[in-house]
Amino acid sequence: TLGVKCQYYDQQHKNFTTSSRSSPSFAPPAGESAPKLFVGHSIYKGKAALTVEPRSPEFSPLDSGAYKLVKEGFVLLQFAPAAAVRQYDWTRKQVFSLSVTEIGHLGKSEEGKVRKLLKVEPLPDGSGHFFNLSVQNKVLNIDESIYIPVTKAEYTVLTSAFNYILPYLLGWHAYANSIKPDDSSRGNNASPRYGGDHEWNR
Amino acid sequence: TLGVKCQYYDQQHKNFTTSSRSSPSFAPPAGESAPKLFVGHSIYKGKAALTVEPRSPEFSPLDSGAYKLVKEGFVLLQFAPAAAVRQYDWTRKQVFSLSVTEIGHLGKSEEGKVRKLLKVEPLPDGSGHFFNLSVQNKVLNIDESIYIPVTKAEYTVLTSAFNYILPYLLGWHAYANSIKPDDSSRGNNASPRYGGDHEWNR
Amino acid sequence: TLGVKCQYYDQQHKNFTTSSRSSPSFAPPAGESAPKLFVGHSIYKGKAALTVEPRSPEFSPLDSGAYKLVKEGFVLLQFAPAAAVRQYDWTRKQVFSLSVTEIGHLGKSEEGKVRKLLKVEPLPDGSGHFFNLSVQNKVLNIDESIYIPVTKAEYTVLTSAFNYILPYLLGWHAYANSIKPDDSSRGNNASPRYGGDHEWNR
Amino acid sequence: TLGVKCQYYDQQHKNFTTSSRSSPSFAPPAGESAPKLFVGHSIYKGKAALTVEPRSPEFSPLDSGAYKLVKEGFVLLQFAPAAAVRQYDWTRKQVFSLSVTEIGHLGKSEEGKVRKLLKVEPLPDGSGHFFNLSVQNKVLNIDESIYIPVTKAEYTVLTSAFNYILPYLLGWHAYANSIKPDDSSRGNNASPRYGGDHEWNR
Repeated sequence: TLGVKCQYYDQQHKNFTTSSRSSPSFAPPAGESAPKLFVGHSIYKGKAALTVEPRSPEFSPLDSGAYKLVKEGFVLLQFAPAAAVRQYDWTRKQVFSLSVTEIGHLGKSEEGKVRKLLKVEPLPDGSGHFFNLSVQNKVLNIDESIYIPVTKAEYTVLTSAFNYILPYLLGWHAYANSIKPDDSSRGNNASPRYGGDHEWNR
Repeated sequence: TLGVKCQYYDQQHKNFTTSSRSSPSFAPPAGESAPKLFVGHSIYKGKAALTVEPRSPEFSPLDSGAYKLVKEGFVLLQFAPAAAVRQYDWTRKQVFSLSVTEIGHLGKSEEGKVRKLLKVEPLPDGSGHFFNLSVQNKVLNIDESIYIPVTKAEYTVLTSAFNYILPYLLGWHAYANSIKPDDSSRGNNASPRYGGDHEWNR
Repeated sequence: TLGVKCQYYDQQHKNFTTSSRSSPSFAPPAGESAPKLFVGHSIYKGKAALTVEPRSPEFSPLDSGAYKLVKEGFVLLQFAPAAAVRQYDWTRKQVFSLSVTEIGHLGKSEEGKVRKLLKVEPLPDGSGHFFNLSVQNKVLNIDESIYIPVTKAEYTVLTSAFNYILPYLLGWHAYANSIKPDDSSRGNNASPRYGGDHEWNR
Repeated sequence: TLGVKCQYYDQQHKNFTTSSRSSPSFAPPAGESAPKLFVGHSIYKGKAALTVEPRSPEFSPLDSGAYKLVKEGFVLLQFAPAAAVRQYDWTRKQVFSLSVTEIGHLGKSEEGKVRKLLKVEPLPDGSGHFFNLSVQNKVLNIDESIYIPVTKAEYTVLTSAFNYILPYLLGWHAYANSIKPDDSSRGNNASPRYGGDHEWNR
């Protein structure tokens, strides 16, 4: 399978290293900083490709020096139609962002001012799922539908990756990482409660 | 969905940045340090909102320089009744702390001096679960019941977050993080056992 | 439930802070270093208590400067019979170590020179599982059996903790943590393969 | 079980500490750096042994200072036939690399210029799975088939380890680890949106 994969990686490379116009990497809205790491996972099929990529939650500092989560992260889905054999036209890509709740149940989701409808449903023959994104933009007169069949194995990878990233999108990893045994601001007040002497063990 | 969400985040913001009286952030008992990170995940419904947030376990130093877990962490549930459309009255919030075992099986749980009963049960139509917290405080003459329907997707996010955080509440992450290959206090004694020469591979 | 728990924690405290003879903390064999963190999770029942605690894998340095895993970690189960209401006699504790494979399928396991048999089976009424450890030591003339019923929720916590810790016992976390994007020893050789110019995106 | 395991670990040691020719550690192709950690998990059976080991994804630096994933990691399976009781001939080992998608669904997979076929299927009696690797190399005139029965418990450990490592092979852990609350390049632009004063909480 490695031979085949190299072609895929070459293809992926094209996507990543060229101008932002054709890159599958999400162009952040003005004022939002670009990520420092691009970790898109791609599924390439005959008529289209799908790249999925996590997006950070946002924290804000409080006056107390603590931080609070102000915006949960999400997963960005990017769909590109095929232009030729194993070549995808990322200039015509369509994006859809999955919130944590939408990740919790992949199904029918709608988004945005430009009407976007994502449907994720099992294939009738039980061989996997399909992802279908249809986009209607009456201003730009775009009316597009991109369809990707996803095998069971590919779907397992997606849901496994989504399940992994979910606590990070919620910011719970940051809380979890802040729990340290030697943190003097925690637990030391608990000492009196546990420091007594007990008959039992003498 | 983004448009709707912004309103929700604004709502959430109100909760976090105002006085502690109206904040959904748990006011720690005197002597307990406040967390440095606020990562509440909220579910907003017509009649009430629910915010879930992890709380650290506590460690104590031993004379040997090691640390021991003295109190397991928990998940704090905070319920606030709606006061108007998409506005919630956190001054009237009710809290419930879920122990690790209660996280292990969300069901019927009771708590505290003030009698609190939390019920988490599937909705009869299979569309999700409900969280119901009823509180009876005869001293303050409070007798309140807060009910939140939770969709399948929202429930999946909650259980996924709970499942993620559980080892941290047990403090097992701290043990896990202390396992380092280059820790000279570990494994070096194992060398003699594995350092011999063996006929087999000559 | 908090009131009840404090008693449990006090009980747990007795276990941890007294002489090694009565401590539930595993006394490591001579030459093996003691862990720096004690994170035992305990289940207290009428006739006995069970504490579960992870134990590190061991690594050895290679001449190349790399490290290899030479011994997988395990989970230590410690059983103590009750001596009085909510008091457990850790001087009479029996221990059993679960290998990663035994963690993979909690069932019937045997161990050691002193014959030990651990059985983990569902309770007939479906309300949970039982852990039964029987120990026969003909030298010391010990023939003991400790039985602990474990509720569904408690069992979920145990298996969730076991599932979390398993990759750490395998040492895979150390490998995973060594994967860094800015590691110049990795991936830089990949550049030529991906650095070419492609017609497609011009 | 410890006694038995020591023999296994001794066996494993032989594999790791001798010449690269007989080591089960994967000899990287020229130009690829060797891993710094060897964390192979082995299953030893009568006729053969199987060692599984993760392999890092590869990142490349971008001109912007960011990094992109250019090659997903994989899991390396190494099969060695038995040469004597509890001794395995790693000089005759056969290797197979599982891509993330193949990890997502262990089943029938093919690889490479030298034709390799891996089959993972449930045993007919329901007692576990078998791994079968057959290799045909017409140049070297090799035509070999290695078969390993894997118990349910061993299979659970493998899939648990695979499931753990998958996000690391995708490089998503690196993204996840880059999400920090105090990262000034993130979230600070969000402040204006959340910094307003709200009537509600006055």
